[in-house]
Amino acid sequence: MLFRRRKERGKEAFLLENKFRFAKEIIYQAGAFLLDHLYDDLDVKQKSSPTDLVTEMDQKIQNDLVKKILARYPEDAILAEENGLRHSIADGSVWVIDPIDGTTNFITQKADFAIMLAYFENGIGQFGLIYDVTRDQLYHGGGLFDVYCNDRKLPFFENKPFSDYLMASNAGMLKHNHWGLADFSRECLGVRVYGSAGISFAKVLSGGLVAYFSYNWPWDYAAAYVMAAKLGFVIQTLDGKEPDFQRQEPIMMAPQSKLKDLQKYLEKGKEQ
Amino acid sequence: MLFRRRKERGKEAFLLENKFRFAKEIIYQAGAFLLDHLYDDLDVKQKSSPTDLVTEMDQKIQNDLVKKILARYPEDAILAEENGLRHSIADGSVWVIDPIDGTTNFITQKADFAIMLAYFENGIGQFGLIYDVTRDQLYHGGGLFDVYCNDRKLPFFENKPFSDYLMASNAGMLKHNHWGLADFSRECLGVRVYGSAGISFAKVLSGGLVAYFSYNWPWDYAAAYVMAAKLGFVIQTLDGKEPDFQRQEPIMMAPQSKLKDLQKYLEKGKEQ
Repeated sequence: MLFRRRKERGKEAFLLENKFRFAKEIIYQAGAFLLDHLYDDLDVKQKSSPTDLVTEMDQKIQNDLVKKILARYPEDAILAEENGLRHSIADGSVWVIDPIDGTTNFITQKADFAIMLAYFENGIGQFGLIYDVTRDQLYHGGGLFDVYCNDRKLPFFENKPFSDYLMASNAGMLKHNHWGLADFSRECLGVRVYGSAGISFAKVLSGGLVAYFSYNWPWDYAAAYVMAAKLGFVIQTLDGKEPDFQRQEPIMMAPQSKLKDLQKYLEKGKEQ
Repeated sequence: MLFRRRKERGKEAFLLENKFRFAKEIIYQAGAFLLDHLYDDLDVKQKSSPTDLVTEMDQKIQNDLVKKILARYPEDAILAEENGLRHSIADGSVWVIDPIDGTTNFITQKADFAIMLAYFENGIGQFGLIYDVTRDQLYHGGGLFDVYCNDRKLPFFENKPFSDYLMASNAGMLKHNHWGLADFSRECLGVRVYGSAGISFAKVLSGGLVAYFSYNWPWDYAAAYVMAAKLGFVIQTLDGKEPDFQRQEPIMMAPQSKLKDLQKYLEKGKEQ
């Protein structure tokens, strides 16, 4: 009985490793496709506002990823940015897809955009991937897997003062000092605005930013959420709650060991 | 007589092409050295403020570049960021050097920094180079030379509305709406903050930003200044004057064809 349970656990780990390898394959394929079509004329459409854009490439990349995932794993489900695919991560084996994160950068700069995948089983994150396409940097891991940037294993967060670190934020939050973020930025070495959640989260994971703040949807933060814990970071709302994986919320990624210090600034900012 | 003048012009062009080729060689060598030492422990020192940093790498890169330039061209002079090398660009054959632009990014992120070189003869820009080291993208040209990013010839600025473009700025200018830049940013698709003049200018040159605003020293803007005109851009102070190539000034790079429209925002912002 014990032997059988062990064998089953071994089989589960084997299947998960296979799935993780498969995720890397399809995200690389999607990235290669985007690079091949980087300078194509794009049909750009507005979504919720004149600055919320989508292209046929977002659709194409998402459709290709969904098709490949469901062909290989027909019982899995999808939560994704485009086309209203909104399966709850709490229910079964669920892939979260952001086909092109940083669409405005993709359209106008042909750089600083990411493809993101995350995989959950009944609400538990198993692995996440952020692919910075033009830099050819794949951040991958979480759950049972160590977190890497390509072949470089990323180190655990090093607890230094805020003044030794840069931070990143959504430009609007900064301009209006929402949650006191402009005040907090003065405690840091400086502030950056990249226009891509994936690029920003990746820079937190690799130690290049102490924290990142923005209004994010589940597909924006899912991959980073799964990788964060492994390196000493958390993703939560700016009120200190678990993100709900359903709506757009004010989200931060920050080091677990600095949460208390950070929350002092956020609470003070909120009172203003 | 005409024949001799032609021959001399030909010789001058030949010497300048050689110098341009030499500049590319030494900037690539400097970049390769930085990549080799990217994860070395750094001795970080403060300059004018706790956020104005310098490392022994800035010194080393500059010293190596100066040594190579003066060994090959002993009559040339240097204007450079470190060690008070302050030859006027108006006087003779002058190289302008920024050994590591974006030093804070270099220290904390190991990305988004640039090496920059520009070459002037009696005040006239002959060529400029911005090397985005970790992306391995060399922006080069100006004067007699077309402007390229690596082997890709960059197109002339395409005159579309501000609302089709991103802009970039120094974070402080944005937070305090200096010159109305926060207001202007709302006319654009969005705003970015990269923490490196070189990276920001390169994104303007390649069409990924409509404009960039910051407080810059001559070595921050010299390379971009030489390349700008070729692609329809200008670098000037926010008051609309020629930069003086001596002090730190509020500087912008913007399209010639949109200067009038832009100056309306800046003047309105200044009145506030």
